Amino acid sequence: MFYHSKELQYKARVSRPDARFARLMLEQFGGANGELSASMQYFLQAFACHNPYPEKYDMLMDIATEELGHLEIVGATIQMLLTGATGNLKEVAERGPIFEEEFSKEDFIHAGFANNPQFGVVSGGGPIFSNSNGFPWQATYINANGDLTVDLRSNLASESRAKITYEYLMQFTDDKYVLDTLNFLMAREVAHYQQFEAALEGIKPNFPPGIYQCDPRYTSFYSNNSTDEQPVRAAWNKGRSTQLDEEWNYMGDPRREVLRTQGLTELKAEGSPRTPSSVEAHDKKLGKRRAEEIRSSTPKGEQCWCDYDEEREPVEA
Amino acid sequence: MFYHSKELQYKARVSRPDARFARLMLEQFGGANGELSASMQYFLQAFACHNPYPEKYDMLMDIATEELGHLEIVGATIQMLLTGATGNLKEVAERGPIFEEEFSKEDFIHAGFANNPQFGVVSGGGPIFSNSNGFPWQATYINANGDLTVDLRSNLASESRAKITYEYLMQFTDDKYVLDTLNFLMAREVAHYQQFEAALEGIKPNFPPGIYQCDPRYTSFYSNNSTDEQPVRAAWNKGRSTQLDEEWNYMGDPRREVLRTQGLTELKAEGSPRTPSSVEAHDKKLGKRRAEEIRSSTPKGEQCWCDYDEEREPVEA
Amino acid sequence: MFYHSKELQYKARVSRPDARFARLMLEQFGGANGELSASMQYFLQAFACHNPYPEKYDMLMDIATEELGHLEIVGATIQMLLTGATGNLKEVAERGPIFEEEFSKEDFIHAGFANNPQFGVVSGGGPIFSNSNGFPWQATYINANGDLTVDLRSNLASESRAKITYEYLMQFTDDKYVLDTLNFLMAREVAHYQQFEAALEGIKPNFPPGIYQCDPRYTSFYSNNSTDEQPVRAAWNKGRSTQLDEEWNYMGDPRREVLRTQGLTELKAEGSPRTPSSVEAHDKKLGKRRAEEIRSSTPKGEQCWCDYDEEREPVEA
Amino acid sequence: MFYHSKELQYKARVSRPDARFARLMLEQFGGANGELSASMQYFLQAFACHNPYPEKYDMLMDIATEELGHLEIVGATIQMLLTGATGNLKEVAERGPIFEEEFSKEDFIHAGFANNPQFGVVSGGGPIFSNSNGFPWQATYINANGDLTVDLRSNLASESRAKITYEYLMQFTDDKYVLDTLNFLMAREVAHYQQFEAALEGIKPNFPPGIYQCDPRYTSFYSNNSTDEQPVRAAWNKGRSTQLDEEWNYMGDPRREVLRTQGLTELKAEGSPRTPSSVEAHDKKLGKRRAEEIRSSTPKGEQCWCDYDEEREPVEA
Amino acid sequence: MFYHSKELQYKARVSRPDARFARLMLEQFGGANGELSASMQYFLQAFACHNPYPEKYDMLMDIATEELGHLEIVGATIQMLLTGATGNLKEVAERGPIFEEEFSKEDFIHAGFANNPQFGVVSGGGPIFSNSNGFPWQATYINANGDLTVDLRSNLASESRAKITYEYLMQFTDDKYVLDTLNFLMAREVAHYQQFEAALEGIKPNFPPGIYQCDPRYTSFYSNNSTDEQPVRAAWNKGRSTQLDEEWNYMGDPRREVLRTQGLTELKAEGSPRTPSSVEAHDKKLGKRRAEEIRSSTPKGEQCWCDYDEEREPVEA
Amino acid sequence: MFYHSKELQYKARVSRPDARFARLMLEQFGGANGELSASMQYFLQAFACHNPYPEKYDMLMDIATEELGHLEIVGATIQMLLTGATGNLKEVAERGPIFEEEFSKEDFIHAGFANNPQFGVVSGGGPIFSNSNGFPWQATYINANGDLTVDLRSNLASESRAKITYEYLMQFTDDKYVLDTLNFLMAREVAHYQQFEAALEGIKPNFPPGIYQCDPRYTSFYSNNSTDEQPVRAAWNKGRSTQLDEEWNYMGDPRREVLRTQGLTELKAEGSPRTPSSVEAHDKKLGKRRAEEIRSSTPKGEQCWCDYDEEREPVEA
Repeated sequence: MFYHSKELQYKARVSRPDARFARLMLEQFGGANGELSASMQYFLQAFACHNPYPEKYDMLMDIATEELGHLEIVGATIQMLLTGATGNLKEVAERGPIFEEEFSKEDFIHAGFANNPQFGVVSGGGPIFSNSNGFPWQATYINANGDLTVDLRSNLASESRAKITYEYLMQFTDDKYVLDTLNFLMAREVAHYQQFEAALEGIKPNFPPGIYQCDPRYTSFYSNNSTDEQPVRAAWNKGRSTQLDEEWNYMGDPRREVLRTQGLTELKAEGSPRTPSSVEAHDKKLGKRRAEEIRSSTPKGEQCWCDYDEEREPVEA
Repeated sequence: MFYHSKELQYKARVSRPDARFARLMLEQFGGANGELSASMQYFLQAFACHNPYPEKYDMLMDIATEELGHLEIVGATIQMLLTGATGNLKEVAERGPIFEEEFSKEDFIHAGFANNPQFGVVSGGGPIFSNSNGFPWQATYINANGDLTVDLRSNLASESRAKITYEYLMQFTDDKYVLDTLNFLMAREVAHYQQFEAALEGIKPNFPPGIYQCDPRYTSFYSNNSTDEQPVRAAWNKGRSTQLDEEWNYMGDPRREVLRTQGLTELKAEGSPRTPSSVEAHDKKLGKRRAEEIRSSTPKGEQCWCDYDEEREPVEA
Repeated sequence: MFYHSKELQYKARVSRPDARFARLMLEQFGGANGELSASMQYFLQAFACHNPYPEKYDMLMDIATEELGHLEIVGATIQMLLTGATGNLKEVAERGPIFEEEFSKEDFIHAGFANNPQFGVVSGGGPIFSNSNGFPWQATYINANGDLTVDLRSNLASESRAKITYEYLMQFTDDKYVLDTLNFLMAREVAHYQQFEAALEGIKPNFPPGIYQCDPRYTSFYSNNSTDEQPVRAAWNKGRSTQLDEEWNYMGDPRREVLRTQGLTELKAEGSPRTPSSVEAHDKKLGKRRAEEIRSSTPKGEQCWCDYDEEREPVEA
Repeated sequence: MFYHSKELQYKARVSRPDARFARLMLEQFGGANGELSASMQYFLQAFACHNPYPEKYDMLMDIATEELGHLEIVGATIQMLLTGATGNLKEVAERGPIFEEEFSKEDFIHAGFANNPQFGVVSGGGPIFSNSNGFPWQATYINANGDLTVDLRSNLASESRAKITYEYLMQFTDDKYVLDTLNFLMAREVAHYQQFEAALEGIKPNFPPGIYQCDPRYTSFYSNNSTDEQPVRAAWNKGRSTQLDEEWNYMGDPRREVLRTQGLTELKAEGSPRTPSSVEAHDKKLGKRRAEEIRSSTPKGEQCWCDYDEEREPVEA
Repeated sequence: MFYHSKELQYKARVSRPDARFARLMLEQFGGANGELSASMQYFLQAFACHNPYPEKYDMLMDIATEELGHLEIVGATIQMLLTGATGNLKEVAERGPIFEEEFSKEDFIHAGFANNPQFGVVSGGGPIFSNSNGFPWQATYINANGDLTVDLRSNLASESRAKITYEYLMQFTDDKYVLDTLNFLMAREVAHYQQFEAALEGIKPNFPPGIYQCDPRYTSFYSNNSTDEQPVRAAWNKGRSTQLDEEWNYMGDPRREVLRTQGLTELKAEGSPRTPSSVEAHDKKLGKRRAEEIRSSTPKGEQCWCDYDEEREPVEA
Repeated sequence: MFYHSKELQYKARVSRPDARFARLMLEQFGGANGELSASMQYFLQAFACHNPYPEKYDMLMDIATEELGHLEIVGATIQMLLTGATGNLKEVAERGPIFEEEFSKEDFIHAGFANNPQFGVVSGGGPIFSNSNGFPWQATYINANGDLTVDLRSNLASESRAKITYEYLMQFTDDKYVLDTLNFLMAREVAHYQQFEAALEGIKPNFPPGIYQCDPRYTSFYSNNSTDEQPVRAAWNKGRSTQLDEEWNYMGDPRREVLRTQGLTELKAEGSPRTPSSVEAHDKKLGKRRAEEIRSSTPKGEQCWCDYDEEREPVEA
């Protein structure tokens, strides 16, 4: 169950109307890396944790709920940046200015509505759930795969993209109040990143993500698919791999290697501390353990999501 | 700012796993008329009311927030209907049953994952933000047009569609716990419908939606675009219109009429109590009034969304 | 079967080319609340009425067909607003003006194609089935749910949104001919609204939409999900509800209530004239009646959509 | 302006309800190559022809209008294939059969709604504007590029795809009435194909599509991007090209050629009857001619789409 | 398996940064008729040819692979047109120019990012997989129907649209280097068109596309769905049809004809050299032949896509 | 420029046709986390690296190109799993089996095409660029943000999701050849993960992603948005943060804190080694450095993407 308070988490202000920057800010309202994406992604991931990992559930729901509040901050800022529009659209008999201190309706007849016409002809001067190009938000932006070693990594990436989007946005306004708000929201992405990272580090093992440890013959070669004279040799294709500690097998001419090994089916594993049987044993053991964590927390037969213990005092919000 | 409590608003339960009904329930999770649509629609509409109509803002945010809780109920139910799947997907070395008491992995090899394969290969046994056909949720489902006489009507329609969807869903399960939950959620749509209706009735005038009263020549004719011998004459094309109280002008042969009147430009208004000048006067007056309601509630220049009055005691959630 | 005549229903004219307003008008061509949406929504809803409610079928098809004609008017206007573009794009060896009296190709090299580049590089100077932001029309915009008490309410909302969109559009042009056309199209939405309303009023009962009358315990409470000191009490949460005439049960602290009633499962109905058994009886009776209306109009076994009675004289269009 | 008659162009019938085939037929209702796509594509293309090429406009509108009627035939067939569903969904107190002679509600509880759950929980037993996988129709399916030498070729391809879709559909039903209808609709695609082809043949020159004749150095080489020992040499890379009658220049080793010619900038044209100056002259002349065709048919300044000549007798539909 | 070389097929250059034209060029990067569409369409069609038509497979893969290289050329050009942006976005403490020789950050605060804000706030100064209106590329743009007589026709249309898009783009830049590149890419579409045409001509019979020859009663009439006094009679509705050589049966009043023939079920074929039995015999024979071509090339039971013959020398790229 | 060889990188085989698993495998062909997404994401990211970070460009293009080959492997496997379909769809006069050893056409009339009807009525028995639910691939799946510290993190997440998808797929087939192929492809994701990780580790500093170091007041608090009696305290909200090494400031009652600090504007930073001025200095320095890396590698004025040095010998593929 959710509650709402009328105060925003951060004191969002704007110095003056600015429809153009309102358009840019849509990127964090209804865009791929915006606050709706963040909130809905963590909310969705939380369902699978509810029984087996209640402390991760708590964290995911805390952050999902905070992000909803950020969505509200972004929306409120867009609404304030469009101040003047809604009222003036109502006064149908007048051709006065659309924004305080800014454009007249006459200007708009020739200029369009500050490049996002839907502020004028759809939302009537408020935010829209689309990105800065007018593309509506969609759930393809979010990821939840029922495995925390995957989901938390998805979140590290999501927070990184949200952070850079705020960084870029800050290059396009000089309204100091708006910059303050962007500064706050950007910093929160960095906080969340570290929270997700701490949670991931607390899961052992967490690599490879999921259960299967994967075939050492195929985890350890680099395929040089470029036809260059002077191939690049660097940390990602020489020395040992970052996590599995296998020696990189550099295939300079992949086609020759593919022909030689019957489509890699006869490739030999070398330079790996892992063997097929060690991998298989690990897969079995880890699979059993994870399955057990989940099963033991879920009653058989009839299910109920939560209890309602009246003794517990309702806590203050 | 939002908060979350761990208890669901309604005590959601399931009697047994049922992946097929989980698939159908997606319609209310990530479908066009589902709870995410409802919640985001009212949340989005609320921004434009924040300053001028704070009591409508309160109502929209209350219902938006309650619907978020309904989204959680639907998601929790889907998660419970998929009980068994997540754990069994982890136990990679086994080919045991996927759901408690139900299908074995062997069955699934041949049957797919109860018709929504993404429960198996994407979400790993949890809900997905798509409809029952796997189409991801998108913001095209929601409407907010910066005018309460329009937005509240959009909401009446949305609640009607949500209600019928629950009604249909109830035909496809016999799990009494799930039926109880659907019964609860369906009834809430009917409550919300009446709440929105009361709010619309409190706005005077509210028809036509928006400001313009519209040209009486064109509001009062019915165009019979069917080539039938025995045209239907009924309440929608004879007698007087429901709101503007104009006599219906029935055009039995629209093309003849269009030719006769130079593309309707020479059509005469008849049977209407309204005249061009009464309409124009009304437009001006109403436009001025609505504009004033909005402008008077919005400070000029620098804007701040809310205040933070420490004297006020935080209220209990 | 459909026919087409070369005359537009309304005498659409433009005073001069105006690519910017052409872009805005796309909102009513390929936008969510535009004429294609309206036409296809009523056309789709009509199928379910064909057998049981032929007079509603006639009305839905009349309006769907008229809206197709409106789509044509909007498209023709866009085409005229882009006058000059198509021809000039053909004259590849010249860098003359793109629009009559307006921009030169040189201007366009620096300015883009009046903000919708696809007029230049995709449609070659004609309309596009997308909204004013270039997002293609999609069938997610339309609703048809196989129940007239729902579908007609969807239509009231659709007409309201279409009306406000024309109202907004009129703020962004001063071409008197275009304003005339918008004025005509806007007024027709108001006519259709009242036609659908008359049809809905003719169905008894029509609330709640669908069959189920819904649980009186859950139709009559208001959930205050805001943490405010001074909750708003108004027509939507005090007194009696608009349709079911139940006393509003105001839950000021929903979480406390939820805990007290075991997730609302132990909530008592109060202040309602309806009882569980009266509701159940009503559900059965209404369900039977509606089912009978549909079944009795549909032959068993082999089906044929219509007959071809040569005796009937073909009517004039 | 459009009209509608109650009779379908073809006498659509079904032998019995069949929800599974109804799902397949959606491909021609709301699918990429279905009747809505066809109708809207020709309708959209027609706008650009209205002034300069009225006879092509007539053909495009005739076929667009006929295709609308085909859309109606497909929708009517789907509605008939779902006979029984709508009525039974209304009878909420019963768990009788959903379809006449077919599935019981009990079956559906376990089986889903014949694989397209939206027939059950969204449309209430009617057609949906989506394809056989439930993906909503969208305007990305259609093409109109403001040039008949392109548009008519798009139509040849569209008709080909529509034809093969009907051919495939016929493999999946044995209902003789449905087969008759598919047989009719499939044949019409073949008729339309030839109509569009005749129109294209009447335009001279029509290749290359558009105006530019294109650089002979680059129209006449074949790039063998495969690393094969025995390259395929066939009509598409040896002898002369089909339309421009140039000798194919076969590049067996494109990278070597690219290096040799400074990224093809120094490639020489050979084997072509065309020269840079003949091409340029042709471009200029053709561009001028096409521009003139368009300009001469379009008045300058104020525009009106059509006239309304009352003398003309309305023709019979 | 694919390889990449660092050299572009064509020596792409730009004279100076130009964010506006970069936006237009997106149409060929992530637009409906752009290079990604072309490449993926031919790649997808190739799978069905792999066994039965290896020489067509070779051609489709050659062109698909070349188009990938064109995608790279377009992307590289966009990247160069945005020169200056990425670096300047990094220098967060400065408000210097965004592009070399062009706009300052201050300009952008007021002007948005050259109309595609995502160049600024999403891609950080690089290409985006969307069209010129910011709509993301999607696979609905491409067609593959498992039949070469259809697929090759789809390709003729695709190449035609790609050609006209380049033609239009050339009207909007005067950068001679960019024009050179567009000139090259446009000419290649014309080359590919002729390659596909040659391949289609080599398939006999290739009309109607697919197997079914279609009912002569329905392939040979023209339906005049316009209510015009002076119907257009032209090559597409008089004389004989282009491919099947049937006499066009002109239905001037389709509704009368439909009523007369019981919904066309009693229509007689006239003027066709084809008869029902000749058609049926043809269908059977052609179906058998095509099925045999496919079956004979595909082993029964276990399948392997290709062999790895080490004897064969790897060829030079 | 790209090349193709006819051999797949891995020797893909199938034991027998299996349309149901073909449907599941679509998830890795046209699904969000499939091979097309991976390939296009790295390809897109590479453009921004081309000048300043050529060794990262090489890595990104190598992996993008390898992933294209994986897309081909997945497509080939789907094609083989559908063996029998294409041929049988051609033999229109027969109602024999659709798949070798499997279903007859009669079965399909009642069962649909193994749950993905488009294999039957669209692709004619080949792969489709959509996911396992029939939703077409779209570019919203991919991310490229012009900053390697962000892009490489996006890639770590993408590889994690691709890996788990293969892991899940392996639970749904028992065809040992298909399992071999999945095993290979899954392992490659783990290899790529480590390659991207090594690249990220080589960039210093790489946290926070982008340039801005962010406000220490806001990077270091945890907001407990849950109304729980016993809040969870764990590594993500106590002790020090993972990267910036700041002491977590736990806000147990965020609303109280928000009111106390005027919407957090008066919050004090505590427990951080960083100060506003240290942060600002760092931002400036890092911004300058990154900008310089990019600028110094990009010539001013005219640009050319690559050179064509004929002296260099073409290398073997």
